[in-house]
Amino acid sequence: MFLIARPLEFESRRPIVFLNSDDADELGLKPMDRIELVFRDTVEVGIINIAEHFIQRGEIGLFRILQEKLNVRMGEKIKVKPTLPPDSIVAIKRKIAGKTLSHNEIKNIINDVVKSRLSDIEMTAFVVGLHNHGMTMSEAASLSKTMASTGVGLNLGKKAVYDKHSIGGVPGDKTSMLLVPTVSLAGLTIPKTSSRAITSPAGTADRVECLCPVNLSIDEIKKAISRENGCLVWGGALDLAPADDAFIKIEYPLSLDPLLLPSIMSKKKAVNAKYLVVDIPTGRGVKFKTIADAEELGMKFIELGRKLGIKVECSSTFAEQPIGYAVGPALEAREALKIADTGRGPDDLINKVAHLAGVLFEFRGFPNPEKKAMKIIRSGRAGKKLRAIMAAQGGNPKLRIEDIPIGTHSVKVKSTKTGKVWWIDNVAVIQVARAAGAPFDKGAGLVMHKKLNEPVNKGDVIFEVYSEHLYKLNRALETVKCMDVMCVGKKYDMVLADIPEDDEEERYFILER
Amino acid sequence: MFLIARPLEFESRRPIVFLNSDDADELGLKPMDRIELVFRDTVEVGIINIAEHFIQRGEIGLFRILQEKLNVRMGEKIKVKPTLPPDSIVAIKRKIAGKTLSHNEIKNIINDVVKSRLSDIEMTAFVVGLHNHGMTMSEAASLSKTMASTGVGLNLGKKAVYDKHSIGGVPGDKTSMLLVPTVSLAGLTIPKTSSRAITSPAGTADRVECLCPVNLSIDEIKKAISRENGCLVWGGALDLAPADDAFIKIEYPLSLDPLLLPSIMSKKKAVNAKYLVVDIPTGRGVKFKTIADAEELGMKFIELGRKLGIKVECSSTFAEQPIGYAVGPALEAREALKIADTGRGPDDLINKVAHLAGVLFEFRGFPNPEKKAMKIIRSGRAGKKLRAIMAAQGGNPKLRIEDIPIGTHSVKVKSTKTGKVWWIDNVAVIQVARAAGAPFDKGAGLVMHKKLNEPVNKGDVIFEVYSEHLYKLNRALETVKCMDVMCVGKKYDMVLADIPEDDEEERYFILER
Repeated sequence: MFLIARPLEFESRRPIVFLNSDDADELGLKPMDRIELVFRDTVEVGIINIAEHFIQRGEIGLFRILQEKLNVRMGEKIKVKPTLPPDSIVAIKRKIAGKTLSHNEIKNIINDVVKSRLSDIEMTAFVVGLHNHGMTMSEAASLSKTMASTGVGLNLGKKAVYDKHSIGGVPGDKTSMLLVPTVSLAGLTIPKTSSRAITSPAGTADRVECLCPVNLSIDEIKKAISRENGCLVWGGALDLAPADDAFIKIEYPLSLDPLLLPSIMSKKKAVNAKYLVVDIPTGRGVKFKTIADAEELGMKFIELGRKLGIKVECSSTFAEQPIGYAVGPALEAREALKIADTGRGPDDLINKVAHLAGVLFEFRGFPNPEKKAMKIIRSGRAGKKLRAIMAAQGGNPKLRIEDIPIGTHSVKVKSTKTGKVWWIDNVAVIQVARAAGAPFDKGAGLVMHKKLNEPVNKGDVIFEVYSEHLYKLNRALETVKCMDVMCVGKKYDMVLADIPEDDEEERYFILER
Repeated sequence: MFLIARPLEFESRRPIVFLNSDDADELGLKPMDRIELVFRDTVEVGIINIAEHFIQRGEIGLFRILQEKLNVRMGEKIKVKPTLPPDSIVAIKRKIAGKTLSHNEIKNIINDVVKSRLSDIEMTAFVVGLHNHGMTMSEAASLSKTMASTGVGLNLGKKAVYDKHSIGGVPGDKTSMLLVPTVSLAGLTIPKTSSRAITSPAGTADRVECLCPVNLSIDEIKKAISRENGCLVWGGALDLAPADDAFIKIEYPLSLDPLLLPSIMSKKKAVNAKYLVVDIPTGRGVKFKTIADAEELGMKFIELGRKLGIKVECSSTFAEQPIGYAVGPALEAREALKIADTGRGPDDLINKVAHLAGVLFEFRGFPNPEKKAMKIIRSGRAGKKLRAIMAAQGGNPKLRIEDIPIGTHSVKVKSTKTGKVWWIDNVAVIQVARAAGAPFDKGAGLVMHKKLNEPVNKGDVIFEVYSEHLYKLNRALETVKCMDVMCVGKKYDMVLADIPEDDEEERYFILER
């Protein structure tokens, strides 16, 4: 059958075509079936969508990616015929049925994912299948390898590349901004790629962007590393593991992440890391609630690392309050730069940096590794190194802390009670910071004035909210009113919650997203 | 935030909006998040898609359904703000996690499915979750009830409504076309709704459409039933269970049907059936391979029926060859009409009709029910009744069999061996008929000249292929060459297949789709 091309303006990477329902019936095609398109010497495969009216009989609507690949214009004739869906769908069905997939099956799936050959329905089936049946270590290794090999690698030509990863979730975690200069100063190569915030008020890329550019090309990263041994860049546009980016689009609306391990390890494999320390924040309000949970995950990282030739150590770290005091991109950037410059700051953050840097030093064979890290931080040399990295990434190494803009609107929240801080709710901290505008408004967020176990007098400021816009500040204060950010009291209120009847409980679940 | 409406032409029932990525970032929205849209007094919720270029900053692209609901035109300003996804997503996540859902949770899901409020990703997660974890009988009952109650019911005001359903898959199955007149002639009310072919060469609706109109409205159905006690109509456009139609779009590309039971029973509930006979074709080449499989399913139907107030009996029927001789809409319509008129024809079909009609007669309390059914068929009175039903549906009761057009191109396929028919491959029969043009070309299909165990001489015609177009006939003959439709031989070839090495085996799986 010949159909007349009608370009559609949508910019999806999916090769989607629209057929009129009568043509689809004649061809025996249903939505999500595949159709082969031949135009001159080019052959492509489209995924069927069906329209009743807006595509006429005899026409075929083409998403932009297909117009470009076929190099076809409005009104030109395309030869079409039904064809089978990609082989990888067979493997996806086997995963749904609880089977273990071979390396080749996984390679096919990842290849088709990267080439955008699968529909949302097929991708979701794979993700939910993995979630329900889990994966073997061999499957995880195959996924990590193929997700890395279908991306752009970062080859630094070094024998030993070090890296650090945190299983996010704890607000105010500026560890990488201090760890990278500390580690690279000691001569270890650490090409740190980070993500932007998805559901948090700031990702490391958002924080560092307040100091210097983070959206570097592979060549720019190589240049920065050759100068300073380390970098702090955004990994999102590097295409290190494009399949992972595609999976995240499916996982996000379902709040699932069955691909957690291969997702992280593929990116470490892509930068050729040989040594990796994984930070697993643990506690109420983050993903891993108990040390046992963290240990279980850590063991898997270590085993998967072994299969991939990456030596891994994992640390479970306390995560029942923000790390340091500041939460939000610019506020955190200010705090991190100040601590780096002065070597002084909140113990929880400095201890965490020294411990995780110490693990990397231990891989390297340094004696007294954690002490060595602490010495570098305390000396203020980490600050000089951080500024050198900023310069290498195209930033101003002389940036003054007060030149980092923060929200001009702020409100101090005061305690209505005297006592001490019994708990801080990270989820509430995150909601308030996001309501204030973070991460989009870099100057938005909050600064804790009191942390766990600190004594508080009635009227003391317990935290301060910053925003770039008055209406967002008000929105943040509304959030403060309806969520308890912290609990101040004289003795512990033994009642955690009244268990609500019946379906009320589901609401809690939404808040945890 | 205010955005400027830009209507998009797509006719999806999904309330999809397109935002520019910068606006989405500012609102903190990712793909599949929800956005509230306010225009004058109307409030709607959209599902987010993100565009880099084709939607400008400050614009919002709206699928037609939203333009219509909001009654908004190009260039008008819409107030938008982020909002939570529907509650039903919490229930979907609980199903993925293997939990049992309450009636209310299921009601919410079905309601949101009917209102097109869920994305493909969310719908697929539910379908795969159900597939992996199964459902309890209570869940199945809740699904059946809510899928029926969210549709258009058929209330005939009768005490007893009878119905028949077949778990499809066997080619040439024209049972309903004889059963409905047989049963209604005996005074039982049977409002038979049928589907069109999805992956087969003919659905009952496709067959009957060669005799009379099948696309009747609810009122037209009521009128036909009041005249003749029975009808044979297409259920697809009646909206008896619109949620089911939405699920089928997800299940089809994955070849899954975890909703099999509620899907069928919701439609029986919607027509207020009180008595139901379920035909479970059993054997190689159909879904249920063994009598044990069929029994397991049958027990579930009976139990689910009990929860829904429908008395169910199930029959496992032999399905290792086509029923009767003809396969394809018009060829089957001719065969069915001839058997009805004359009371004579292939034993397998007539026995099946008599048995299933007998089950319904037994519900009614008739003595010797199967004999009674056979008597009606043999007398030719079923034929008169079928023609009366055709008339009641707006067809010509005097239609001559030779006036039903069949493909003008045909080829007789002859045996290259002498012996007897050892097996017939239904999957091959289906592929050949579809390659010949069925079900879209109503005159396409094939007619078996030999069936199981019949003696065959070399050179005997074993089947004949019909097509409306020469190129489709050629395509069908290609299919005949590469698939064995039947096996003729002197003794059984004990080797069923050489098991191929490694991943070759997956190809077999594709053919089974």
